[in-house]
Amino acid sequence: MNPLCGPHSGPYDGGMELDFVRWLNERLPTLSGGQVGVGDDAAVVALGGSQLVATADLLIDGVHFDTSQHAIERIGRKSLAVNLSDLAAMAAKPVGCLVSLALPRGGAGGVTTQQLAQRLVEGMAPLAEEFGCPIIGGDTNVHEGPLVINVTAFGEPTERGVVRRSGAAPGDWLMVTGDELGGSLEGKHLDFTPRVVEALRLVELADIHAMMDLSDGLSLDLRRMCEASGVGAIVYKHHLPISKSAERMARSSGRSPVDHALSDGEDFELLFTVSREVGEDLLTRPRFRCGLFWIGEITADPELTIRDFSGSTRPLEARGYEHQ
Amino acid sequence: MNPLCGPHSGPYDGGMELDFVRWLNERLPTLSGGQVGVGDDAAVVALGGSQLVATADLLIDGVHFDTSQHAIERIGRKSLAVNLSDLAAMAAKPVGCLVSLALPRGGAGGVTTQQLAQRLVEGMAPLAEEFGCPIIGGDTNVHEGPLVINVTAFGEPTERGVVRRSGAAPGDWLMVTGDELGGSLEGKHLDFTPRVVEALRLVELADIHAMMDLSDGLSLDLRRMCEASGVGAIVYKHHLPISKSAERMARSSGRSPVDHALSDGEDFELLFTVSREVGEDLLTRPRFRCGLFWIGEITADPELTIRDFSGSTRPLEARGYEHQ
Repeated sequence: MNPLCGPHSGPYDGGMELDFVRWLNERLPTLSGGQVGVGDDAAVVALGGSQLVATADLLIDGVHFDTSQHAIERIGRKSLAVNLSDLAAMAAKPVGCLVSLALPRGGAGGVTTQQLAQRLVEGMAPLAEEFGCPIIGGDTNVHEGPLVINVTAFGEPTERGVVRRSGAAPGDWLMVTGDELGGSLEGKHLDFTPRVVEALRLVELADIHAMMDLSDGLSLDLRRMCEASGVGAIVYKHHLPISKSAERMARSSGRSPVDHALSDGEDFELLFTVSREVGEDLLTRPRFRCGLFWIGEITADPELTIRDFSGSTRPLEARGYEHQ
Repeated sequence: MNPLCGPHSGPYDGGMELDFVRWLNERLPTLSGGQVGVGDDAAVVALGGSQLVATADLLIDGVHFDTSQHAIERIGRKSLAVNLSDLAAMAAKPVGCLVSLALPRGGAGGVTTQQLAQRLVEGMAPLAEEFGCPIIGGDTNVHEGPLVINVTAFGEPTERGVVRRSGAAPGDWLMVTGDELGGSLEGKHLDFTPRVVEALRLVELADIHAMMDLSDGLSLDLRRMCEASGVGAIVYKHHLPISKSAERMARSSGRSPVDHALSDGEDFELLFTVSREVGEDLLTRPRFRCGLFWIGEITADPELTIRDFSGSTRPLEARGYEHQ
């Protein structure tokens, strides 16, 4: 989720959504009581003596997936996974989810409406079980339009509270989980593992200053984190963990593997910042199977730059989904 | 919301949704720890030391509303109101909501995509403020299909806990809020007041055995309550509060006003049961501006019947949205 315009809201539509979010932020009264509300990976609201962390992603056939190409179970899995990734980005423990479906009357992907609904749920079920996020309700409707899936996931903060995008400080190390940035269209965008376990481990081990998930491409998402934190960043080009998919795609795309790693969307890895001391500790005592990578540093200067091996820098253009 | 097939999921599609819900209830492991899960007006899950009550309704242009006829603000209002009605049905206090939109690329109802999104939110805003249910996030996307709105609302139980559908007991009085059953298509289906205040007042004043909201027609919803509670009911025909709209519509529909009151959907009133003593107290000391009506009694015999002035009874057919 995002400011009514998710990291996962897919291709921006000629700026409509950004305009809408700007309007919305002005229109809605500021929320009180430490609530995050509109503008982070998930919303946070007081509930009982605790906090509810909630996130929604709406996925549409032909925009976020393609029922004529992708197995229905994989589509179902993805529609829950993107929400789990948003909870992870806030360092929240999943507790459950609601699934709303607008089902095409004639079915899709070669199956009937009923089979479609069942296979979507079958695709979600293993992930729901693995991450303790049971489907506890929802809504289904049949209509004349395309398959639309909205999953809303709920979580609760750990004792350390939620981690926001806005806590990055000059001098922080910039880090990511996983060794596969870029090229997710080859398959990872459907089959990725949401970094729930890693996020909870990170906040248990260390003081995480800022965190978000990578959904629209590193260069675009990093800009969002920096804007929320009022800082800039230098990305170390030669530190970027580039996926084999990005390298393969670069052979035919006319773009470099680094460009794929910087601007392909749907990596669904965690981008986070820590103090240098914490970063060194995380790197020297490896405790994450997926790997952690040190890819840059946070600067007081609000610019975003990328630095290569030779030490020369150039501005880092924010390019994600909207330019593809 | 309902068993992935909301009271508000609109016209059932040839049994698809009921089949799906049956399948889902078998498929998903039983939830533990006093959770309601799939099968009530809203889902309940443990969160922190408290409970989260959550409900989702997905509304589609051409199914639940018509952008060519209805003002966009009224559609926005309704899409939040149906969720507030579900929270009320559980006697939960609203705390916030998420709004997901699939917006038609060309706009709808004579306005652009951006205006559409803004007007929907403008329609929700007064209701969100009145009932303490701020919009705290969501997701927006543009696509080639019709306008799809999914609102997920969150609430918390009062000290008395949530009220379920399953607590109706033989001898209970069957009661409803409001004096306007039937004929909501004339306008109430868009402009109704969700009975949040009344629900919270009811649980404060009295021991409410079972409660739900009337979304698919009294006869169909009552059947659901009776099935969940393992009981039957007798409805007193001459006690039914029939709306002026139902009387007007009966003049041209070929159906009686009583039939409209029994089987028109979208009344969004509360249907609840209490002991006879409590019922008498509620009736003799009127404390609800909307009015409370005693419309029948719960029986051990699982049949549903309707009894007229003369004392003669006939079976009460469950007729709601799916037959219209």
